[in-house]
Amino acid sequence: MSQSLPATIPARLFESIADTIVNTARELATLGWTPATSSNFSMRVDAGHAAITISGRHKGRLEHGDIMLIDLQGNAVDTDARPSAETALHTQIYLRLPQMHAVLHTHSRTQSVASRLYATDGVIRLQGWELQKAFAGYTTHDSVLKIPVFPNTQQMPELVARVDAWLDAGRPLHAYLIDGHGIYTWGRDMAEAVRHLEALEFLLGCELDLRRLSS
Amino acid sequence: MSQSLPATIPARLFESIADTIVNTARELATLGWTPATSSNFSMRVDAGHAAITISGRHKGRLEHGDIMLIDLQGNAVDTDARPSAETALHTQIYLRLPQMHAVLHTHSRTQSVASRLYATDGVIRLQGWELQKAFAGYTTHDSVLKIPVFPNTQQMPELVARVDAWLDAGRPLHAYLIDGHGIYTWGRDMAEAVRHLEALEFLLGCELDLRRLSS
Amino acid sequence: MSQSLPATIPARLFESIADTIVNTARELATLGWTPATSSNFSMRVDAGHAAITISGRHKGRLEHGDIMLIDLQGNAVDTDARPSAETALHTQIYLRLPQMHAVLHTHSRTQSVASRLYATDGVIRLQGWELQKAFAGYTTHDSVLKIPVFPNTQQMPELVARVDAWLDAGRPLHAYLIDGHGIYTWGRDMAEAVRHLEALEFLLGCELDLRRLSS
Amino acid sequence: MSQSLPATIPARLFESIADTIVNTARELATLGWTPATSSNFSMRVDAGHAAITISGRHKGRLEHGDIMLIDLQGNAVDTDARPSAETALHTQIYLRLPQMHAVLHTHSRTQSVASRLYATDGVIRLQGWELQKAFAGYTTHDSVLKIPVFPNTQQMPELVARVDAWLDAGRPLHAYLIDGHGIYTWGRDMAEAVRHLEALEFLLGCELDLRRLSS
Repeated sequence: MSQSLPATIPARLFESIADTIVNTARELATLGWTPATSSNFSMRVDAGHAAITISGRHKGRLEHGDIMLIDLQGNAVDTDARPSAETALHTQIYLRLPQMHAVLHTHSRTQSVASRLYATDGVIRLQGWELQKAFAGYTTHDSVLKIPVFPNTQQMPELVARVDAWLDAGRPLHAYLIDGHGIYTWGRDMAEAVRHLEALEFLLGCELDLRRLSS
Repeated sequence: MSQSLPATIPARLFESIADTIVNTARELATLGWTPATSSNFSMRVDAGHAAITISGRHKGRLEHGDIMLIDLQGNAVDTDARPSAETALHTQIYLRLPQMHAVLHTHSRTQSVASRLYATDGVIRLQGWELQKAFAGYTTHDSVLKIPVFPNTQQMPELVARVDAWLDAGRPLHAYLIDGHGIYTWGRDMAEAVRHLEALEFLLGCELDLRRLSS
Repeated sequence: MSQSLPATIPARLFESIADTIVNTARELATLGWTPATSSNFSMRVDAGHAAITISGRHKGRLEHGDIMLIDLQGNAVDTDARPSAETALHTQIYLRLPQMHAVLHTHSRTQSVASRLYATDGVIRLQGWELQKAFAGYTTHDSVLKIPVFPNTQQMPELVARVDAWLDAGRPLHAYLIDGHGIYTWGRDMAEAVRHLEALEFLLGCELDLRRLSS
Repeated sequence: MSQSLPATIPARLFESIADTIVNTARELATLGWTPATSSNFSMRVDAGHAAITISGRHKGRLEHGDIMLIDLQGNAVDTDARPSAETALHTQIYLRLPQMHAVLHTHSRTQSVASRLYATDGVIRLQGWELQKAFAGYTTHDSVLKIPVFPNTQQMPELVARVDAWLDAGRPLHAYLIDGHGIYTWGRDMAEAVRHLEALEFLLGCELDLRRLSS
């Protein structure tokens, strides 16, 4: 898309961020985690802006023109393009967790199935897996990593409120699932966000396998 | 194949359509959804014609010459090549749903297994999945998306009659399964048809996983 | 390997056959059906000879030099290289089924697991799948396709005798499994052998899924 | 990393070993066996040194600079980089099994799930699989291949002691699992180590499938 940038954001910075998002999106699409034009990805640009994927594009064929600039109230900057309805879930992370610079939302089969199975519990407790150490602050497999599962809704403010409530309670939050939908996770940079996503896809898959095999 | 086109169909139009079919076929073959030369794909060319894959070719190695022109009665145009026996299921969609421009028939393991498991019910009810929104008119995960499962037969008129009956009853139809066989789905263009196919493969896979894990 | 060919076999013929085997092996290795240097592949060269893979090579990295010429008694022709112990199962097909020109033996997880589950029955009955039509003579999903499962043994003559007994009884044979081991299938040319292998991998996978989901 | 080599280790030797490790790591990453920067790989350089991956790097994007030289006491040679905490498990193999020249540690979902399921037994017994012959000394599917499963701990000396105890008892050891973690295996060269890893991934996957399907 042809979007003029505010004077405070260098074109090269935006290009470099768009590059990172496009490359990440293609890799995740190849893994099959973004079926049927689902999923969206973003990166913080500065204290007041982020770059985010335009909704409805096939993530395996994303191009620079499919990334748009928004402010952290979720408004498009100098363009008529309308950002995704789920933009509010991205900006919420940037506003509430100032260290975070990348947010990934995907839809793998494992993520969707796990969200349905644990929706009633409202949380997935992960324990005993070495890979929990992929998250900062987790130094042993003996720790417990809790991933909340929120009910799905087409009303974004309801979801925003649930995430706020979790954070307001002072509980650690590295990711969350939405029932029948997918996962949100994030990181201090894109490499960390991808590491968290890979670790969660792996851990959720292991939990489903254990459940299948232990019954 | 060397097939002469009617004067009303520009060679460049046919080439471009053949290109789209060949590229889509290769991508779906890579996913393993077209085993053992199964599956066929088509696109509408104009009000009276479609382009369709010649039967018996490996879909991962399809070339332009493997695409033939047919009229909507299912006859080959100016060629001795015989179109696939399943051609009637493609032309039926173009005749009854004038907005549709692409039809995909694949054979993934998930599609075939789901068709066997739900054959007695005659329908798969999908509900609670965000990805149902991949279909036009579905704006919430709370809606119900019904995919009929028809009995398999080697007599195409029987299948055509079942599809007609479903449509004549005024029921929405975005796709159907044939027992022990595979899926048919379509779209207003190839991108939409692929989106529907990806969404259905995903949703059927999720339903099978839930069934496995909930027992 | 540097192997001198008999005068009756043109170098170009042997090169072309080695090419076909190498390319097929790489494709099957990519699918994960040849783990840990397992599996072997061959093609008939003439009425008295075949080309076969040397044992112990990684099938994803096969080269022309990894293909050797043998006579149909299983002896290497003009070379010190020793053909695989399982060579006798390839030559048996060429001797008993004169129309067959390619034999594939692979080790996918689906093939190995199915062989264990159906070893006691001694046969897998496939019925109700459209893809059975991948086999010549099968024109409907209603037909029954029987794949015998033979006990594993390190004594090749025992296996040869079991295959002979099945054929001597006049029963159709398109493929067989060996318990805990893998599959053998063949075709009138390599394309048909690959079609049979893809169809069987698919059908065995579907049967395992149905079994898992129907209980 | 810029690491100066001892005079006794030719730069070309180290380069060639780093090459082998990097290429192997990329192939294993493509298979999904190294999620979220997990896993580590090494090769013996000479009687007193090994080359090993620096921890925390994404294994699909490994470069020469991500391989470091260590002595067999696990100390970095002429560099400030700190080798992985799990280095002691690699050097133990080189010290106790002088014929071994490559050690692979991966984290596939199959490996992690199998380790949890068999943790109480403390061992996985593999029998009846042709692919057991991928291990030197195993000439028939009738043999029994035992893979111990050790409890996970963040204290490496505890794990080293368990491996020592197994070896001190004179029991054959080709690989071991760590509960909730992953697998260690090795070979006389990298090709053999990869063959062992492929065989074990396959055999563990088959065992899980059998367990799922036999209940």
